[in-house]
Amino acid sequence: MEKLIITLAPTGNVPTKAMNPATPVTVEEIVEDIKKCRALGVSIAHIHVRDREGKPTSDRSIYQQVLGRLAEEKVDIITQVSTGARGGENTIAWRGQMLDLPARMASLSTGSSNFPSSINANDPALIEALAGKMYAHGLKPEIEAFDVGMISNAKKLLKKGVLKAPLHFNLVMNVPGSIEGTPRNLLFMVESLPAGSTWSVSGIGKSQVPMLTMAILMGGHVRTGLEDVLEYEKGVPATNAMLVERILRIAKELGREIATPEEARRILTL
Amino acid sequence: MEKLIITLAPTGNVPTKAMNPATPVTVEEIVEDIKKCRALGVSIAHIHVRDREGKPTSDRSIYQQVLGRLAEEKVDIITQVSTGARGGENTIAWRGQMLDLPARMASLSTGSSNFPSSINANDPALIEALAGKMYAHGLKPEIEAFDVGMISNAKKLLKKGVLKAPLHFNLVMNVPGSIEGTPRNLLFMVESLPAGSTWSVSGIGKSQVPMLTMAILMGGHVRTGLEDVLEYEKGVPATNAMLVERILRIAKELGREIATPEEARRILTL
Repeated sequence: MEKLIITLAPTGNVPTKAMNPATPVTVEEIVEDIKKCRALGVSIAHIHVRDREGKPTSDRSIYQQVLGRLAEEKVDIITQVSTGARGGENTIAWRGQMLDLPARMASLSTGSSNFPSSINANDPALIEALAGKMYAHGLKPEIEAFDVGMISNAKKLLKKGVLKAPLHFNLVMNVPGSIEGTPRNLLFMVESLPAGSTWSVSGIGKSQVPMLTMAILMGGHVRTGLEDVLEYEKGVPATNAMLVERILRIAKELGREIATPEEARRILTL
Repeated sequence: MEKLIITLAPTGNVPTKAMNPATPVTVEEIVEDIKKCRALGVSIAHIHVRDREGKPTSDRSIYQQVLGRLAEEKVDIITQVSTGARGGENTIAWRGQMLDLPARMASLSTGSSNFPSSINANDPALIEALAGKMYAHGLKPEIEAFDVGMISNAKKLLKKGVLKAPLHFNLVMNVPGSIEGTPRNLLFMVESLPAGSTWSVSGIGKSQVPMLTMAILMGGHVRTGLEDVLEYEKGVPATNAMLVERILRIAKELGREIATPEEARRILTL
């Protein structure tokens, strides 16, 4: 098995300080959590940003500040910007505005699904436009697959030339309103991937530990952080570092070594 | 195995007479195709209607005309109205406006997915509102599952009391942009259903024959019609009757008898 790539998703769109006071929302807080978790062993930072009111935004200038600070401080980490931010127009101009910045990867959903109280809306034309802008600026897409159909569609886009092999997926399990985070469902998703793909797993809420553990034992990679789970265990608020530390302990028990950013770049053919 | 319930989906949202001249779009044409296919053996009519320009609509008065004509002519068929019509506001007021009419079933998507060039957008609040209005008026929902997550969500809504057991599903396979219509995917969908559910299969485009044949041999039910497939075979435009006749021949080879509307009502606990 390859070494384990750990992605940190520190902020997301949903968490607030009211929900968990450890949620990093300012540029400084986001950069601090990324640095802290890089020191622990994560090699990719999946970055969402917030506006002055703490609301999710795709604002290019805020992404630029986060990426600029990480570069200034020479933090050796693979930067991945999110194109899934809510809070603006659902257009390439809004959602893809940060894709010309010097990041290394960007998230791309290849279909639509439901969130707990809204739609994860990614229409076919937007998907192709986002992919096109990513490749034009040298960013590798991470395909966020919230269900089996998004894998089917990624294969179609690969055949059409919109996406380029080898693909990298993040399988997002257990979002309320979408596919349940069961071992059977995860196994099916993994076995549905195009040959030669790399993949990681996000486990939302209470599926966090079983889904990520299964990814580790199957040879996949993992994403963790407050974007995906707010409590470390029932009644105990998590921090990004606590979540990463748990993964490190589980990986150690299962005998998976941790990939450095350099090793992650090779594994993901960046 | 139970007898085979055949649902006719004669019109849908997408087909036009330019795409296939046999597409029924007026009230008269829709009623005629339903009568013709009832005589062949279908027991459920999945009804979409069109406005004067032939565009898809949820207009209650047009649904009322179709249902009224079927009642007048004493057509013994289970009527199922579609809440998936495009062409209006994506609200309960628009999409659910026909649910107080004397139909027997209504379609309900329990999540969102992609169509070839748009989003199959069903936000969580809308899903619950549509289900509530269906039960209030004595209509049984047919859950249109375009992907695995919609089955996960149906189970959640069952637990929450929004949906009532036994559920009836239609597994919609091979919509471009959603789950591919492969035997492996269909098997997984079927094995994901809550125990005690009944289910049928729609096979879009070239998946029509393999997906429906698999449903027949597994003990499921089938939906066919121009909504799902425009060509009988490559280069040969289909008619609704031709599609039904093919299913009858395949069912005969596989030894499945055809359910009458009365038998279908019992199987579906209507």
